[in-house]
Amino acid sequence: MKRIHSKDDIVQAGLDIMLIKGFNATGVEAILKQANVPKGSFYNFFSSKEDFGLAIIDRYTAEINEVFHPIFNDESLPPLERIKKSFETLITRFENNECTKGCLIGNLSLEMSDQYENVRQRLEQSLRGWAKVLSGLLFQAQEEKNIPADLDPEMLAESLISSFQGALLRSKVKKSSEPLKNFIYLHFDRFLAVK
Amino acid sequence: MKRIHSKDDIVQAGLDIMLIKGFNATGVEAILKQANVPKGSFYNFFSSKEDFGLAIIDRYTAEINEVFHPIFNDESLPPLERIKKSFETLITRFENNECTKGCLIGNLSLEMSDQYENVRQRLEQSLRGWAKVLSGLLFQAQEEKNIPADLDPEMLAESLISSFQGALLRSKVKKSSEPLKNFIYLHFDRFLAVK
Repeated sequence: MKRIHSKDDIVQAGLDIMLIKGFNATGVEAILKQANVPKGSFYNFFSSKEDFGLAIIDRYTAEINEVFHPIFNDESLPPLERIKKSFETLITRFENNECTKGCLIGNLSLEMSDQYENVRQRLEQSLRGWAKVLSGLLFQAQEEKNIPADLDPEMLAESLISSFQGALLRSKVKKSSEPLKNFIYLHFDRFLAVK
Repeated sequence: MKRIHSKDDIVQAGLDIMLIKGFNATGVEAILKQANVPKGSFYNFFSSKEDFGLAIIDRYTAEINEVFHPIFNDESLPPLERIKKSFETLITRFENNECTKGCLIGNLSLEMSDQYENVRQRLEQSLRGWAKVLSGLLFQAQEEKNIPADLDPEMLAESLISSFQGALLRSKVKKSSEPLKNFIYLHFDRFLAVK
């Protein structure tokens, strides 16, 4: 049995459970049990469950950014292909989870934005950071005439992320990645195609 | 104080609270208090909280269908304009709620699809019913050459609903309807425009 436990272990255990059950259905007790941590240690690290939720969002965002980093910086691919590949990588993760879990940021966005203002702000920050990277790549794609010249890269970046989140929502209900694959086809092969 | 209470009153009270707090954070006690109903009556009507959730989904779906019905059947508008208007109507509702609540179907899709199989199936049914109406209208729009001839109306219907749900998710975090308005612009004025 693992005896040493750290703040990191608790956050990781919380992330694993919260990805499946969401915030409200995740009991702190269950997380402590999974991480093999006494209750006192938890409150040494986190002032509240909300505070714990923020740490989990940060961890998840960092984890996804690590997945994205080599893709977004792969100079062997045109910028638009890098964006497409980044979404496809998330789709593969979703398929590997038997079409469960989805994206923690999306899940908590709908569950918590009206309830916890600090969480809402952290989600906003995470989504905005993602859009910033995509809009930089879309700007390059536009310079290279790979997307229509008169589309605003920032609007488009936000829209791609939103539509991906929506396709993920639909796929989570359908228990099939078909809506996500249609998202890829419609956006990258049709809507953004330069005629 | 209202003394007569019915199954309908309880479902309505549950819907009001669940739209704000989601499923897991909604306590049956709070709903009974709001509907002024003794606990015994609740369990006369519903075998479990899950059963109650299904009744709330049905009520919400019926309510939205009532909003949609006159719009989808408005013969004075071309089919594609009816679809656009139906989304705009939901956006106005969202704005009237100060960018809170959103769509119960979308909210529960992310919160509950991995947890309650019966709920997942009911959400699937609701989303599929919506897509069916849209694909009928998109088929007409295609016959009238108002959308590209080689897009599959069924795929497109599902994609419009998904992208709308994603834009709603983003708007709920941003506390602004801007992502929803960009959804309307990008899809109806750009992506589906026939050149």
